[in-house]
Amino acid sequence: MRRDRLFLGATLTAILSADLYFILLPKLRRVGLGSGPLCPCGPVNLSLPLPRHGGLATPRLHNRSSALTPGPADWGSKLGRLFDHPLYNIRSPEPGPRGGGLLQEGDLVQHYRKKVAHWERHTKLYGKAAAISNVSVSEREVTFDPGASWLKFHLGIDRYALYSRQDAAVPQLLRDMQSMTVISADYTQDEKALKGACDCTQVVKPSGHHLKLALKMQNYAKAMFKPMRQQRDEETPEDFFYFVDLQRHNAEIAAFHLDRILDFRRVPPVAGRLVNVTAEVFQVAHSEELRAVFFTSPANNSCFFAKCLYVCKTEYAVCGRPDLLEGSLSAYLPSLSIAPRISIPNPWIRSYTFAGREEWEVNPFYCDNVKKTYPYNSDDRLLNIIDMSIFDFLTSNMDRHHYEIFTKFGDDGFLLHLDNARGFGKHSVDEMSILAPLSQCCMVKRSTLLRLRLLARPEFRLSDVMRESLEEDALRPVLTEAHLSALDRRLQKVLRAVQRCVRRLGEDEVIVKDFAESTRAPPPSD
Amino acid sequence: MRRDRLFLGATLTAILSADLYFILLPKLRRVGLGSGPLCPCGPVNLSLPLPRHGGLATPRLHNRSSALTPGPADWGSKLGRLFDHPLYNIRSPEPGPRGGGLLQEGDLVQHYRKKVAHWERHTKLYGKAAAISNVSVSEREVTFDPGASWLKFHLGIDRYALYSRQDAAVPQLLRDMQSMTVISADYTQDEKALKGACDCTQVVKPSGHHLKLALKMQNYAKAMFKPMRQQRDEETPEDFFYFVDLQRHNAEIAAFHLDRILDFRRVPPVAGRLVNVTAEVFQVAHSEELRAVFFTSPANNSCFFAKCLYVCKTEYAVCGRPDLLEGSLSAYLPSLSIAPRISIPNPWIRSYTFAGREEWEVNPFYCDNVKKTYPYNSDDRLLNIIDMSIFDFLTSNMDRHHYEIFTKFGDDGFLLHLDNARGFGKHSVDEMSILAPLSQCCMVKRSTLLRLRLLARPEFRLSDVMRESLEEDALRPVLTEAHLSALDRRLQKVLRAVQRCVRRLGEDEVIVKDFAESTRAPPPSD
Repeated sequence: MRRDRLFLGATLTAILSADLYFILLPKLRRVGLGSGPLCPCGPVNLSLPLPRHGGLATPRLHNRSSALTPGPADWGSKLGRLFDHPLYNIRSPEPGPRGGGLLQEGDLVQHYRKKVAHWERHTKLYGKAAAISNVSVSEREVTFDPGASWLKFHLGIDRYALYSRQDAAVPQLLRDMQSMTVISADYTQDEKALKGACDCTQVVKPSGHHLKLALKMQNYAKAMFKPMRQQRDEETPEDFFYFVDLQRHNAEIAAFHLDRILDFRRVPPVAGRLVNVTAEVFQVAHSEELRAVFFTSPANNSCFFAKCLYVCKTEYAVCGRPDLLEGSLSAYLPSLSIAPRISIPNPWIRSYTFAGREEWEVNPFYCDNVKKTYPYNSDDRLLNIIDMSIFDFLTSNMDRHHYEIFTKFGDDGFLLHLDNARGFGKHSVDEMSILAPLSQCCMVKRSTLLRLRLLARPEFRLSDVMRESLEEDALRPVLTEAHLSALDRRLQKVLRAVQRCVRRLGEDEVIVKDFAESTRAPPPSD
Repeated sequence: MRRDRLFLGATLTAILSADLYFILLPKLRRVGLGSGPLCPCGPVNLSLPLPRHGGLATPRLHNRSSALTPGPADWGSKLGRLFDHPLYNIRSPEPGPRGGGLLQEGDLVQHYRKKVAHWERHTKLYGKAAAISNVSVSEREVTFDPGASWLKFHLGIDRYALYSRQDAAVPQLLRDMQSMTVISADYTQDEKALKGACDCTQVVKPSGHHLKLALKMQNYAKAMFKPMRQQRDEETPEDFFYFVDLQRHNAEIAAFHLDRILDFRRVPPVAGRLVNVTAEVFQVAHSEELRAVFFTSPANNSCFFAKCLYVCKTEYAVCGRPDLLEGSLSAYLPSLSIAPRISIPNPWIRSYTFAGREEWEVNPFYCDNVKKTYPYNSDDRLLNIIDMSIFDFLTSNMDRHHYEIFTKFGDDGFLLHLDNARGFGKHSVDEMSILAPLSQCCMVKRSTLLRLRLLARPEFRLSDVMRESLEEDALRPVLTEAHLSALDRRLQKVLRAVQRCVRRLGEDEVIVKDFAESTRAPPPSD
C-alpha cells in the first residue's frame, strides 16, 4: 500500500515536473522576452562626463496638463524623469531684437477669420450646387475658436523650435486631431500639383504612391492624413530602393515622439487616428476628383486609391474595414502665405536612380568642401544637418532629399524635420550611410551628444522612453519591439561614431559647445 | 534500497511518458496531419453508380518511362491506381476522315529546320554587331533534334486532347524544360504588342504586371517563363479585384497537374525551374529593350521589371537570390503560322470594372439564351465550357475572359485551358460564381462527373493524388496543404451543385452521356 502510494506520488510529481519543464517554462520564457527586450549592447562609456544630477534630477512637482509630459504621480515613469533632467530644462534664450516668434497673434487671428468666412461662403455655394446635381455631402459647420490648440501651436513657433517643452497646446492639439469632427477632406497641394499627369518616362519617381489627404477639423485645424499601407510587423523587402518604399503612418507618429525625446522639437505634432473613410473622407470631400477614386472592394470594404492616373489601379488602393482605417494626422504648419518656408537640397542628397552615386558617397573629404560653402560655412547650419542625420539614422529614413526652414529666421533658423514616413522600414538593418554628415564632418553639438548619452543609460533607455511616449497614441502599439530595440542599437552606433572622431581629432574639435554660444543660458555644470 | 529503486524507476517512467505525451505525440500528430489532411466533408453519395472495378481496377503491369505515371513498383501510389482505373483507360476514338492529328510530321520538321537556319543566321549577325558595340552576350548553339520531346508533344496533339495518357514525350518535355540549357530570352508576343505604350487612361487593366518571358532551349523547345511573385503561403488580399491579382508561377504548375488528373489534358505541360536570371536570361537576351530593364537591387540581387513604361518601377520588379529565381515554364503550343488558334470570349465573362455586372450575374435564366446561340446550340461546346468552369472553380481562377481552340478542329475541338496563373490565390474562399455555367445550365458530361466522383473517394482523394503528382516537380512543395485541402472541399461543392440539378431536373436531363456519343469507345459497365 505504502509502496503503491509512493509510486503514485512519484509518478504524479514526475509528470508535474515534466509539465513544468516542457510546457510552462517555455511559455513563461516567451512571455518574459515579449515584455522587455534585452538591450543588445551595453552603454558606451565615453570620457566626457555627463552633467551631474543636482536637485533637479528627482522629478519636480509641477502641474502638467499633458499626458505627454507625465505628472508627479508617475514616479516610475522614465519619460517623466527624462523630461525633468537638467538637460531638458535649459532655459530658452530671451528673444532678440528681431523678435523670437514666427507669427504675430493679430495677423494670425485675422488670417483665420478670413479663412472661416471664405469657407462659409464656399460651403453655401457648394451645398446649392450639390443639391441640384443630387450629390449627398455631409455639411458641417466650422467654428471660429480663438483659443484653438492649433492656433496656439502656430503662435508658439519661435526661432529655436516648433514648440516649447511645457507647451500645453501640443498635447491638446494631439487630442483634437485624434477626436475632433472632420469637416472636409481634399487632396494636398502636392497631389494637386501632380494634376494626374505623371511623367510616364520617369522610371523611378514614385510620385504616384502618395495617398495623403488634407483633413480639416471643426475648429479649422488642418492635418495631413497618411493612411496605413503596411502592417506593423512587415519589413520593407530588401530589394526595394529607399525611394520607392511605402510611406508608413506609424513611422510618421514615431518620428514625432522621437524628435521630442531628443529635445529637437522640429517635427510638427502627429497623432494616430482610426479614420472612417466613408463618413470622414468621402462624405466630406467636395472635390469631384477625390470622390471619383472611391470604390467598394470585393470584400465590401470602402477603398480609395492614389490620384496619379498611371497608378489608378486597385493594387495601390487602401481600404477600411469596412470603413475604419488607421492613419497618421500631422498638424499643418502655418500657411506659406503668412509664414513662408524655403526648401533646400540636402548636401548629402542621394542619387534617385538605380546605379547612380553622389559625390559624398565616393569622396571621403566631401565635408571639407561643404564646410567652405555658404550657408554651411557659418552659424549652426552644418551642426543642424548633423542633428538631422542622427535623427534620420535612428529612424533609418534614407529619403531626406530636402529640408525646410522658415525664411523669417534667416540662416540660423532651425531645420524642419518634415515627412518622416519612410523611416522604420527595416528594424534589422542599420544604414550607416545616413550618418555620413556626422562621420565625414566629425562634428556634433554638445547639447545633442549629452542627451544621446543620457538616452543610452539604462535609467533613461531610449527604447523605454519611446515605448512609454508612444503608449499615449491611440494606435498603440505604434512600433514593434524589434523597432524599439533597433533604436538602442543605433544610438550606440551614433555614440561610437562620435568616439572615433574624438580619438582622431580630440574633443575640442569634435564636440561643439552650443549652450554658451547659440543660447545665453548657462551650460549645465560638468 | 528496493523502495529507492522503485521510486527511481517510477520517476523515469513518468518522465518518459510525459515526454511521450507532450513532446513526441504532438509532433507525430503534426507529421500525420501534414502527410494526409482530413477531408472536411464526407463524399457525397449520389444515386448514380460508379463503373464497377473489373480486372482493370488492380494496377496493370506495363512499363512506363515517366515519373508522372507511377510504375508497377508504386503499389502505395494513389496516382498510379487512379491512372490505372478503367475511367482513365477509355480508348480514344479512331481518327475520322479529316485526320485526328493537329500537324503533319513533315510540315512540322520543315518548319523547325527553317527556324533553326534563321536562328543561326541571326546569331552570327548579332554576334558581329555585339562585338562592335562591346556587348557581352553568351552565344550558345542550337541543335537540330528530330527526336526532341517538344516536337513529339506538338505531333501528339489531336482533336481530343493536347496529349495522350501514355505519351512519354510529356514527361520528357517536363524534364527538358526543367534542366535544358537556355539559349535565348525575349519578351513574349503579348509583351511586344504592348510596345511599352500603355494607355494611361485605362484605370483597371493590369497589363503592366506581366513579367513573363519567352525562353528558348538548346533543342529549340520554347517555353513561357513566369517568375515567382508571391510566397506559397501568401494569400491574395481580400480587397483585390481578381483582374489585378498577381500571376502565380506555382498556380501555373499546379493547374497543369490538376488538368491531367481530371483527364482533360487541355493545359500544355508546365514545369517549375530555378532560373539564373543573369546567365539564363540577361546574358542570352538579344533585345536591347529587355536588357535595359535589368538592374541590381540594394541587396545586390539581380532583378528585372515589367516592360510597360508606366510601371517600370522597382516595386514591380522580381529579383533573384542573388541570381536564382523560381518560375514556371509552360511549353509553347505550335506556332500560330502552322496551327492557327482562335480566341473566343467566355460567355460567362466578368465585368472588368469596379462596379459593373454582366448579364449572367443578374439573370438566372442566362443559360437559356446561351443554349440557343451558335456555337453553344450544338455539339459539346457548352459541355466543354462547363468542364472549364469546374476546372477553374477547383483552382479558383476568376480570370477566364477568353478561351482558345485550334481552328483546324472546327467547333467540336477541345477548349485550351491556357493562362492559369491567377488560380490558387485564396485557399479559404470558394468563389461559387465561377461554377455559374454548371449551376445555371445544369448539365455535365458523364465522363467528367464519374471522374470527379472517383476523386472524391478516400482511395483516390483529389488532394492526395495532386500532392503525389506535384511531388515530381522541381519546385516542390508546389501548393501548401491549405490549398490542397481546398481542392477536396471544392470538389464536394461541385458534386453538390450537380446533385441539386439532378433533384430538380432528373438525371437524364443533367448528366449527358458523352462516351457513346462523342467517342466510339464503349462506356464502362455501370
